[in-house]
Amino acid sequence: MLAFPSLSPAPSPAPATAPAPSRPPWAPLPPLRVGLLGVGTVGAGTSRVLLRNQALIRARCGRDIELRMAAARNLPRARPLLGPEVELVADAQRVVRHPQIDVVVEAIGGCGDARTLVLDAIAHGKHVVTANKALLALHGDEIFAAARQQGVVVAFEGAVAVSIPIVKALREGLAANRIEWLAGIINGTSNFVLSAMRERGWSFDTALREAQRLGYAEADPRFDVEGIDAAHKLTLLASMAFGMPLRFDVVAVEGITQLHAADVRHAEALGYRIKLLGVARRRAHGIELRVQPALLPEACLLAGVNGAMNGVVVKSDAAGPTTYCGAGAGAEQTASAVIADLVDVARLGSAAGASAVPALGFEAAALQPQALLPLDAHITGHYLRVPVTGDAAVFALLLDTLADHGLVVQANRDVADDARGREIVLLTAEAPLHVARGAVAAIAALPCVRSAPVRLSVEMLA
Amino acid sequence: MLAFPSLSPAPSPAPATAPAPSRPPWAPLPPLRVGLLGVGTVGAGTSRVLLRNQALIRARCGRDIELRMAAARNLPRARPLLGPEVELVADAQRVVRHPQIDVVVEAIGGCGDARTLVLDAIAHGKHVVTANKALLALHGDEIFAAARQQGVVVAFEGAVAVSIPIVKALREGLAANRIEWLAGIINGTSNFVLSAMRERGWSFDTALREAQRLGYAEADPRFDVEGIDAAHKLTLLASMAFGMPLRFDVVAVEGITQLHAADVRHAEALGYRIKLLGVARRRAHGIELRVQPALLPEACLLAGVNGAMNGVVVKSDAAGPTTYCGAGAGAEQTASAVIADLVDVARLGSAAGASAVPALGFEAAALQPQALLPLDAHITGHYLRVPVTGDAAVFALLLDTLADHGLVVQANRDVADDARGREIVLLTAEAPLHVARGAVAAIAALPCVRSAPVRLSVEMLA
Repeated sequence: MLAFPSLSPAPSPAPATAPAPSRPPWAPLPPLRVGLLGVGTVGAGTSRVLLRNQALIRARCGRDIELRMAAARNLPRARPLLGPEVELVADAQRVVRHPQIDVVVEAIGGCGDARTLVLDAIAHGKHVVTANKALLALHGDEIFAAARQQGVVVAFEGAVAVSIPIVKALREGLAANRIEWLAGIINGTSNFVLSAMRERGWSFDTALREAQRLGYAEADPRFDVEGIDAAHKLTLLASMAFGMPLRFDVVAVEGITQLHAADVRHAEALGYRIKLLGVARRRAHGIELRVQPALLPEACLLAGVNGAMNGVVVKSDAAGPTTYCGAGAGAEQTASAVIADLVDVARLGSAAGASAVPALGFEAAALQPQALLPLDAHITGHYLRVPVTGDAAVFALLLDTLADHGLVVQANRDVADDARGREIVLLTAEAPLHVARGAVAAIAALPCVRSAPVRLSVEMLA
Repeated sequence: MLAFPSLSPAPSPAPATAPAPSRPPWAPLPPLRVGLLGVGTVGAGTSRVLLRNQALIRARCGRDIELRMAAARNLPRARPLLGPEVELVADAQRVVRHPQIDVVVEAIGGCGDARTLVLDAIAHGKHVVTANKALLALHGDEIFAAARQQGVVVAFEGAVAVSIPIVKALREGLAANRIEWLAGIINGTSNFVLSAMRERGWSFDTALREAQRLGYAEADPRFDVEGIDAAHKLTLLASMAFGMPLRFDVVAVEGITQLHAADVRHAEALGYRIKLLGVARRRAHGIELRVQPALLPEACLLAGVNGAMNGVVVKSDAAGPTTYCGAGAGAEQTASAVIADLVDVARLGSAAGASAVPALGFEAAALQPQALLPLDAHITGHYLRVPVTGDAAVFALLLDTLADHGLVVQANRDVADDARGREIVLLTAEAPLHVARGAVAAIAALPCVRSAPVRLSVEMLA
């Protein structure tokens, strides 16, 4: 490739004269040679989209992106999922060490072999593209450091919200901004389950079984419905938003397995939707990181993100709130993100090592640990459902108790049905969780309260 | 900067050994030196955000981005809007020719001086950042060609949907995809007016006056409410989506000035919202490009994009539908986009000429003219409002007439009020516009029809 005049201190006072044409003529660059680890859903989808849109991708990045090698455990099953020109091997080490591979796509999943192979690929000077959020949330600091050392790129657009280019939005599109907070529906399985609970009035168990039947949930759905997967993604989002090292260990995580259909119903009657939300928020004294089921006002765009879709809203100081929505799972949806990363590498060419966007969107040396707030100090609104006796004065008593704790009630419902008995539902203004917990304990001790109140967070996204 | 091993055919069969560290240590690059043309809303906002977030921007791109010079017509008014270290000049040519300016931000607007100055800046080897959609929609081919010739970047994230990084999403995030269609609410003024018409039941004139009073509409709002501004943006979006040269001349444009409050009301009663929508859609025999007021199903995310917000949905073959929403106007919102472009240039450093994403997201030589469909051949659903007499048989007669033209009715209302008399509202399945126009002409000729029917497009966004 040609060298170009540096942007930086041109000592000459004369106007720059015409440099050589910026890009050499049409498509002179050699193909970007890709090695694939794992020919499962994501690997096969990536192969399929690369082949189908080959000409289009060439037109966009000025060179071909060619899948040259793939490693799979089950070769006969993998063979028909790949183009005939792809060399298929059983030993993944052959891919990560091969001198004629430029980029390795890790599509194995998990943190065992995937970690070793990614580090090996980096050690052999390969760029790496992965959609493995668990790997990066837990081992990202190690992996990104190794990549910096070797002058290679580790790209992971598919790791956060699959089809939505949210990594690009955070690291590049919003680079002018101080990010104040972000909130995301970043687990499609949970969102499918919650949408089914709301639309059909189902219990969590029924909705989960339906999600499994339709292929939206794994046989073992715990990673999804217990919020772990969302916490992995939130870890990555928070680091890119606030320029801090990856801190999966401090994300407060609560899943949706304990969520009652009654709360979904009450929330809707009050004009809210319950979503499993990952929130990263800058407060005066530190950062809140949490994944939990939370009520959202139905007028906000995220409340309309249903089924297996994902959505993220980012509030930043100059751009204001921007919202991003799209499919949160799927073979080709993930492939779209994986190939976008490959296109970035292909376009950068030999400048990839020096000029690529840093992994977390900040120069490594500029990443700074941030004070992180314990869950009890997180500030949200609060939804309370209190099973009560028929006592006429009970409502006033609840309000008094909440007021004693400094909680301001903004809306309420008083509902009695045959199955559940009388329940009072309250929405409070924002207050730290420890305040709400104190109030809930006091309420639970009242004689007119039949059983433990349910508390959920309310995110006003403002 | 250091040179790095090329990605491309490494002839050596040995594994790559560790190259030099990819980025030199923390912040060794000299500042990116910016010259600003025009110190109005956008220029002043850019200066303000650059100063406020200076340290953050440095942490993100490894070097400072410094506003060094600015040209303004009214120097005393401009002076307090800029930092004290900015050299303020009256002659914009001094900025575009200055040897110590790396990038010129064009914030003048219009297609006169702005075009000349942008071309001059390019001729002097400067990168250019602009949010001027009119300039690019009308003169983009000339400007981008000049930039290619000179090996400089022309970036325009702020030109399309201001705070939303949609240019980045289309050119990079979705680069793996064949784009099938996109639809956008890409004019904040019109959306504010339409939202006010719906929420308050106002007429167009009343809503526009309110928008002007609140500063959401210019004194001369024609560019906005007649759809011209949206058509400029759609021109850019369509080229990036389909890899075609800029064709503002063929966009079919209809504004909202003729829209009746009655249609806003009827649409809502049928479960739809009316939005001024820019649509670019690939059909079997060509591409549809149109800006017009259209009904959207209220369940789609764009229907929830209200006030001065913008939103774009892109349907692509691998990623599926992805939606992007955010502020469509504002000084700092535009600055966010302008500075994102500056960050891209700063990160690329001396590789900017060779490795930057091509202006329209496709290699210039790969841009291909596309067959463009005349408006009469565009396919949408149709909304019809027909003022009729009280004749009992009139509804059946309308259905017969539509059926004769091959139009399938999917929903209807039959409403009579004192002010407007009886009106029948119909929604049809998709059909080409010429078919709907034929049916409307036939209906208008029926004796039971009191006056000319109103037709609007219905976009199902599927």
